[in-house]
Amino acid sequence: MYYIGIDLGGTNIAAGIVDGNGTIIKKGSVPTGRSRASEEIVEDMCTLVKNLVSEAGIEEAEIHSIGIGSPGTPDRKNGIIIYNNNLGFRNVPIRKLIQKHFNLPVYLENDANCAAIAESVAGAAKDEPYAVVITIGTGIGGGVIIGNKLYTGFNGAGGELGHVVLHMNGEECTCGRKGCWEAYSSATALIRQTVRAAKDNPQSIINQLAEGDLSRINAKTAFDGARMGDETAKQVVDQYIEMLAEGLANMINIFQPNVVVLGGGVSKEGENLLGPLREKLKSRTYCAEGVENTRLVAARMGNDAGIIGAAFISRS
Amino acid sequence: MYYIGIDLGGTNIAAGIVDGNGTIIKKGSVPTGRSRASEEIVEDMCTLVKNLVSEAGIEEAEIHSIGIGSPGTPDRKNGIIIYNNNLGFRNVPIRKLIQKHFNLPVYLENDANCAAIAESVAGAAKDEPYAVVITIGTGIGGGVIIGNKLYTGFNGAGGELGHVVLHMNGEECTCGRKGCWEAYSSATALIRQTVRAAKDNPQSIINQLAEGDLSRINAKTAFDGARMGDETAKQVVDQYIEMLAEGLANMINIFQPNVVVLGGGVSKEGENLLGPLREKLKSRTYCAEGVENTRLVAARMGNDAGIIGAAFISRS
Repeated sequence: MYYIGIDLGGTNIAAGIVDGNGTIIKKGSVPTGRSRASEEIVEDMCTLVKNLVSEAGIEEAEIHSIGIGSPGTPDRKNGIIIYNNNLGFRNVPIRKLIQKHFNLPVYLENDANCAAIAESVAGAAKDEPYAVVITIGTGIGGGVIIGNKLYTGFNGAGGELGHVVLHMNGEECTCGRKGCWEAYSSATALIRQTVRAAKDNPQSIINQLAEGDLSRINAKTAFDGARMGDETAKQVVDQYIEMLAEGLANMINIFQPNVVVLGGGVSKEGENLLGPLREKLKSRTYCAEGVENTRLVAARMGNDAGIIGAAFISRS
Repeated sequence: MYYIGIDLGGTNIAAGIVDGNGTIIKKGSVPTGRSRASEEIVEDMCTLVKNLVSEAGIEEAEIHSIGIGSPGTPDRKNGIIIYNNNLGFRNVPIRKLIQKHFNLPVYLENDANCAAIAESVAGAAKDEPYAVVITIGTGIGGGVIIGNKLYTGFNGAGGELGHVVLHMNGEECTCGRKGCWEAYSSATALIRQTVRAAKDNPQSIINQLAEGDLSRINAKTAFDGARMGDETAKQVVDQYIEMLAEGLANMINIFQPNVVVLGGGVSKEGENLLGPLREKLKSRTYCAEGVENTRLVAARMGNDAGIIGAAFISRS
């Protein structure tokens, strides 16, 4: 049996055919073209899937289901994307639209939750009954696995871990609150912190790395500067790791999962990030002596997490 | 069948015989005498239970089990209280000690979790699959119910909701971190906030209510002053409710439970507290339009929550 996973993003639609072990046997992508009507976007999505199925030489009868991951809270029961700011979607009956092309079950899930499903089914949280998966990107995406299943609360909107206030009345967050974890620990936040530091410290190597154009600063710049020994960059990185540790410690004190899995671009810093984080977590997590502690690990599914997670929505 | 519940506190040992519906048919208490050896404390506990059983006219054969709630993380599997600061307990094999007197299964649980079990089995969270129970006392106790069962993570230490940092580098917490929710929203914190305000505002009615002795201020004083129209007291209450709302919004964004149940002394303010909290939660909880929201309700089990929750550990 094969599983189709679709990662519906603001820029690209990525789709893949996934086998039962979580291996992508065929994948592809097309531009989302997000200014278009939802019907047109769904048409392109279905054409992409049809082409992949044909290239892979499989039959529709061998496909278990189609899963779609996208930002926001989906109406899972009715197969509707209630709201997707990036795409301008509002109450799009995506299941119905897709079923015009495929006689298959269609599942929907939030994209951060898909990343958690992917890590749980085939990645860094495989065989771990309890896991918290944090994806550091434009925002902080959170996905919670409890008893090997995705946890979404009584209304399907749970696990919004990025919107936990870490600093009352602090930085403005896109959600309207102030001081959310996301406003300190997302890649967007790291870039903001790096830009501020570059402005305040004109001699910092950050300005050279940006070639004098602060809009060129990305989430890697401060880490690069720190590796080159720049004090300002080191401070940015240290403070960033400090705030990330505070938020991760909160999640551990709440869930005490077997593992916390860290994904997204920033997590590619690997042990440069995970090592100091583990050190900082020691004094911040609330656990009796002699009790086993949560492990902090890097995500393993990389860019394919969206496709694989979407493919396996029905299994979580 | 009857269930014995024991609430092992620093001052008193309260015990009760509970029927299958969560009704206490007989209860009593004895002083803990916490400077004594653990064996002596357990002897008194067993004598108390034996007396209750005899007064109730029931047989040991009619008793399902004995449950004990106490602060800290118990070793549930081995029946050991690993650490209890109040009682000076360290690795006390309480199950073995009790089974010298009773041929019954003995279950252990953290006291805040017992409160959550009580509300889930017989109180404000009855028939609600997902619930977060917050007990405002010396600290902030948290208990999480997921799928009608107590959630404690992979190592049994989960649900430490009071030790979620709400304000990085803020007020010192008893746990060693800074800015924990408990340091802002416990009864202890409210008393500290009231004392500060009284010192800064000598004309405030708070000083009269305390009869000039700030050590007489309790968690009710600011609410009493606010009811009498005192501006300083109103400010203390408003700020306290603001911080409590921030913490509760965090829990809702994480768990999206059917209900959040608020217990402990402060919750006796009832709608004076719950009304403004509900108002403040509206803009702070992260939930898509058209999705049902978590309800905030008052705890129903009152002082008996400890006994009833302990009695029903085996059912959660």
